[in-house]
Amino acid sequence: MQPTWTKRFAHRTQRMKGSAIRELLKLTERPEVISFGGGMPAPEIFPVDEVGKACDRILKNYSEKALQYGTTEGYNPLREMLAKEANRQGISCEKENILITSGSQQALDLIGKVFIDPGDKILVENPTYLGALQAWNAYECDYLTLQSDKDGMLPESLEEGLKKGPKFLYALPNFQNPTGISFTLERRRKVVELADKYGVPIIEDDPYGKLRYEGKDLPTLAQLDAEMRGSPKGQMNGNVLYLSTFSKILAPGIRLAWAIGPVDAISKIAQAKQGADLNTSTFNQLMAYEVGKDGFLDKHVEVIRKVYHERRDVMLDALEEHCPKGVEWTHPEGGLFLWVTMPKGIDTAELMKEALKLNVAYVPGSSFHPLGGGENTMRLNFSFSNPATINEGIGRLGKLFKDTLR
Amino acid sequence: MQPTWTKRFAHRTQRMKGSAIRELLKLTERPEVISFGGGMPAPEIFPVDEVGKACDRILKNYSEKALQYGTTEGYNPLREMLAKEANRQGISCEKENILITSGSQQALDLIGKVFIDPGDKILVENPTYLGALQAWNAYECDYLTLQSDKDGMLPESLEEGLKKGPKFLYALPNFQNPTGISFTLERRRKVVELADKYGVPIIEDDPYGKLRYEGKDLPTLAQLDAEMRGSPKGQMNGNVLYLSTFSKILAPGIRLAWAIGPVDAISKIAQAKQGADLNTSTFNQLMAYEVGKDGFLDKHVEVIRKVYHERRDVMLDALEEHCPKGVEWTHPEGGLFLWVTMPKGIDTAELMKEALKLNVAYVPGSSFHPLGGGENTMRLNFSFSNPATINEGIGRLGKLFKDTLR
Repeated sequence: MQPTWTKRFAHRTQRMKGSAIRELLKLTERPEVISFGGGMPAPEIFPVDEVGKACDRILKNYSEKALQYGTTEGYNPLREMLAKEANRQGISCEKENILITSGSQQALDLIGKVFIDPGDKILVENPTYLGALQAWNAYECDYLTLQSDKDGMLPESLEEGLKKGPKFLYALPNFQNPTGISFTLERRRKVVELADKYGVPIIEDDPYGKLRYEGKDLPTLAQLDAEMRGSPKGQMNGNVLYLSTFSKILAPGIRLAWAIGPVDAISKIAQAKQGADLNTSTFNQLMAYEVGKDGFLDKHVEVIRKVYHERRDVMLDALEEHCPKGVEWTHPEGGLFLWVTMPKGIDTAELMKEALKLNVAYVPGSSFHPLGGGENTMRLNFSFSNPATINEGIGRLGKLFKDTLR
Repeated sequence: MQPTWTKRFAHRTQRMKGSAIRELLKLTERPEVISFGGGMPAPEIFPVDEVGKACDRILKNYSEKALQYGTTEGYNPLREMLAKEANRQGISCEKENILITSGSQQALDLIGKVFIDPGDKILVENPTYLGALQAWNAYECDYLTLQSDKDGMLPESLEEGLKKGPKFLYALPNFQNPTGISFTLERRRKVVELADKYGVPIIEDDPYGKLRYEGKDLPTLAQLDAEMRGSPKGQMNGNVLYLSTFSKILAPGIRLAWAIGPVDAISKIAQAKQGADLNTSTFNQLMAYEVGKDGFLDKHVEVIRKVYHERRDVMLDALEEHCPKGVEWTHPEGGLFLWVTMPKGIDTAELMKEALKLNVAYVPGSSFHPLGGGENTMRLNFSFSNPATINEGIGRLGKLFKDTLR
């Protein structure tokens, strides 16, 4: 009998769309293309020496542990290091509140597995992080979107969404992917209060929190929730599950991230993780611990901030210089991305074909909109390309915009 | 409002049982316990020098690639290396047929995600690999079990199961986890023929294929299926999805494995993987490629075989010496495990409490039986402990068995 793999795909695979964007982005891998498309860190500042020294140390001193299976929850010294760092940042927690994951993408997937029943509604910003949509589509949820402005989620819109009974609220308060927008302190408090009022848990995704180039650091939703609730020190029993990652402060190639949350949620997610990949690479966990345990990452984050700050400024200046009237963009205080809005009627997915002819790429904004829309928007990444390349690329885009809007 | 994480768990989490075994095995982490429980490789023969040299080389020459995001399908030179190796072993395939996964556990999880709708029936051996059950329980399948003997799946029982319309058949033809039993060539052919007759795809899980200590290597189901079907060379269009891993031939701590299958199945699984963790650690992929590209793993497998062969023999001899009449065990030709059957009426989960008092541990067999049963069986691992420890541990178990059966 003829094998029939495709006929045997589960119902949920119909929701797992092959991203048209992803196919498009494959074209951007040609070396001559200036890509503002991906969300990649600058590879030239990866801390190669530190990683090498860490590898040497763990292979010399802990090889039997580093190369062996590990516990699903993660390497305990790393969990302790992350708990300490979280406390320093204002999130009161202990090792038991922390689960190591294989990148934040895995945390998003496991959250979907643990919380989403088919037909559940998930409340998200619009636009929101594409990777979260990809993870959760497989669990057959529906999306409720809410409106935001330059200060973050609009309280009225948020409350309207919360009233519809979503399973959880997904929020990226710092330098959101894709828009680069951050929530003000007032809005953060409002988000925490309203989510509490309607009993809706919050997934706070914070991959870029440390990459701030201007303004001052603001408390996480996790911290504000605990303060509001008067949670005893070290006891994480609130309404927020917080995600962060080594991808942007060390290197994405080691696929290492963590979730911080109440023990009942963390334990169930760990159970799901056991079935999903047993444990995250022990080798990479020990390596990250060795790199981070004596404070190196604080110094390294300074380097990253300096480099990305300059690149952000170069991109903002170049946009100012090259873009015609009618094109608008955000001014992110940190992170990796900014968001361009073209006049209504311009289709940035169509425009991408022209951009690729000029060997320059971005991500069309519609893919970040779970219910459609945003055809006239695009995401630009400023972390990956150097200043000269950013100038050149934005110059080409600016010319294309002018030709298009003529 | 009081946060309610647990009340928000999805329906499927009810199937994700916290393994009682796992809790029991935590007790075995005490250093004084001789553990035949886990499935861990011998850490003292991890190829630490080779891994160290590989890390040096990739950080010196390819750091910008090794520490960056990679493609979901995997690092192409590694996929090519694995395709070449698969062809050498008789599985005719190309790079496009190969997906790199974060351990075989992830491959099992993704297979569940892509193929299992709630209520689907999955046909498995009884007992079968616990990790597969853990992965697939989350997708709310039901299990059909089939009977095996010392030569593998019993054709009548297999055919009976196939007639019931399972979504797929799960098979571990080499040194099965947990029993250590291998399929004979005749039975392999029969499995492939019958699965084809009923149009049921096969998931062939082969983590231990290279670890044979006696007898001669037998073709994989993937190879036999292609031969039966007369598939053109290099074209993998058959009925088998084949899984293997670096965990047993290099190190489990790098969480690196691969699936080989028809492109339509592999592409869909890759799509699911994108939402699950974007990509497997690029660093670890480059490391495994550097370790393996010049044939080192062939030599290293010889070392592993020699060490485990001795340990298997020591365990078989010790069982012979110490076990009372009424206790039986398998004689695996390879792999990491053997399977002990006590007289009916003995509950090995209960007995484990006594064993732990003697500081020796195993895995009670019931957990490998998806529909219950097997209370009088246990799995013993012989790869992790050295010969003296195996002798000591089996001595203690033998004494316990004698006291119990007295």
